Amino acid sequence: MASSSATLLGKRKSTALAPHVAPRKPRILLAACGCVAAKKFAILCNCFLKWADVKVVLTKASQRFVDIAGIPQFVAMYTDGYEWLSWKRLGDPVLHIELANWAEIMVIAPLSADTLSKIVRGSSGNLLTSIVRAWDYSKPMFVATAMNTLMWRHPLTERHCISIDDLGINLIPPPAGELDDPDFISNTVRLSYDKRMQKQQGVV
Amino acid sequence: MASSSATLLGKRKSTALAPHVAPRKPRILLAACGCVAAKKFAILCNCFLKWADVKVVLTKASQRFVDIAGIPQFVAMYTDGYEWLSWKRLGDPVLHIELANWAEIMVIAPLSADTLSKIVRGSSGNLLTSIVRAWDYSKPMFVATAMNTLMWRHPLTERHCISIDDLGINLIPPPAGELDDPDFISNTVRLSYDKRMQKQQGVV
Amino acid sequence: MASSSATLLGKRKSTALAPHVAPRKPRILLAACGCVAAKKFAILCNCFLKWADVKVVLTKASQRFVDIAGIPQFVAMYTDGYEWLSWKRLGDPVLHIELANWAEIMVIAPLSADTLSKIVRGSSGNLLTSIVRAWDYSKPMFVATAMNTLMWRHPLTERHCISIDDLGINLIPPPAGELDDPDFISNTVRLSYDKRMQKQQGVV
Repeated sequence: MASSSATLLGKRKSTALAPHVAPRKPRILLAACGCVAAKKFAILCNCFLKWADVKVVLTKASQRFVDIAGIPQFVAMYTDGYEWLSWKRLGDPVLHIELANWAEIMVIAPLSADTLSKIVRGSSGNLLTSIVRAWDYSKPMFVATAMNTLMWRHPLTERHCISIDDLGINLIPPPAGELDDPDFISNTVRLSYDKRMQKQQGVV
Repeated sequence: MASSSATLLGKRKSTALAPHVAPRKPRILLAACGCVAAKKFAILCNCFLKWADVKVVLTKASQRFVDIAGIPQFVAMYTDGYEWLSWKRLGDPVLHIELANWAEIMVIAPLSADTLSKIVRGSSGNLLTSIVRAWDYSKPMFVATAMNTLMWRHPLTERHCISIDDLGINLIPPPAGELDDPDFISNTVRLSYDKRMQKQQGVV
Repeated sequence: MASSSATLLGKRKSTALAPHVAPRKPRILLAACGCVAAKKFAILCNCFLKWADVKVVLTKASQRFVDIAGIPQFVAMYTDGYEWLSWKRLGDPVLHIELANWAEIMVIAPLSADTLSKIVRGSSGNLLTSIVRAWDYSKPMFVATAMNTLMWRHPLTERHCISIDDLGINLIPPPAGELDDPDFISNTVRLSYDKRMQKQQGVV
């Protein structure tokens, strides 16, 4: 028995999780900004739900565009109004810190030109930017920009994209005006997550 | 007849428009920010109306100062509330893009210290800054700063003025705390427009 | 008599104020931003009141945290709503300029990550940042940052601290996530003020 158990542990060591144990889903914080591409956010959310544990953060401006009814009811959704709802005194948990700690990965899609500039300058005036400002960059963050072609061509866009790259934020390619296909965004993040997991487990 | 017509065309070539054809007025987007100098905005607007087709954009903060009643009723006026009023679905026209495309020239007078900093950092959180963020800088943009002397002397003011110059935005001289005389602003923009037109028509 | 008077004047020259004349208290503008450490603001205010003439500026976000009842009623308190309350026409006094002129020293404690970024970029969208934007840096300004450890470790924090140091703003040490002890903050500012006064009076 002892020997077979050791063998089992040995096997476990290399695969990290025994095949019969359903692996825990990655915890992903999925956020939307206020731009027309946020119309696709509910679809994007459902793509991620196929393989991840998702919580949603919506800026005030995004709520005009996001199809809330298209997001399953079991998904926790947070807006600015929730930020200090239950906070009473020093030491109480603070929502943007709780969410930054909960998430293994953060994905902002679509990322508007306005929120892009806020991230670059370290603004933390709403729930989404507070989470980004409190993010631990040893954990991956992905953004998919979406803006009108005119805005995209503005000279500041390139500078801002360089700045967020400097911060360690991943720009989901191709960075362009239009929001990428929701499936493509979800798959890009998943591929990166799987590689990361394999690396941590010593498989690769 | 043929010969006289050719002569006429020849003459037209050099003046671009025959004298009896009223030339189309240039389309100017005139915007005001929230600072005390915006009290002069209605007068400025009337100066521009003498020679240009004008649409007006007002920030929320400017509305405390601008004398709305002093602006002729036929002038279209846009505020943040209009931005998404008629927008329903992906593909519908977006107001800040429509206005950026409509205008041949953009003039921000007065430009407050706050909006100056927003332009420099590429913010697009309201209608005015969204238009600026989507502006095609092959078309001229003019700004006339106006701020208290104390604000004007702040070290960031000069840096911000350099940054907007880098973007290709024209600072109407003399850049100083006080808003220039409305007639002077209008004439500065008109002179620049006339030169540009003459250049395009090969006169100069 | 003449000789003794001269001696008295001579003595006065070195101490600037005769011992029996109560020296005027320094005028300090004390401001709070919206972060949990603002819970200590009323205590901080009372520390300063022991030796200074204090006026208070509160951002909208700070009002959720500040214990207003803990601030003596004789202390003038200003929020964004006051900014243009009595302003009617060009030439009327403007509150943020009045306050910037009134104060000999400005102290922002706690300074949140968000307002830190606003100061760095020269924003003047609310009463507090308008005063900072109009500040005459020949007069001292002190800030005591306060933010969650996660936010504190973000790479932009250091850059922003360097930028405000460049502006001539004093960061009350140790610059860290937690707000310093109110007594320590008050004493740091007082020590600096006393040194400055002694220097101006030629004692040191």
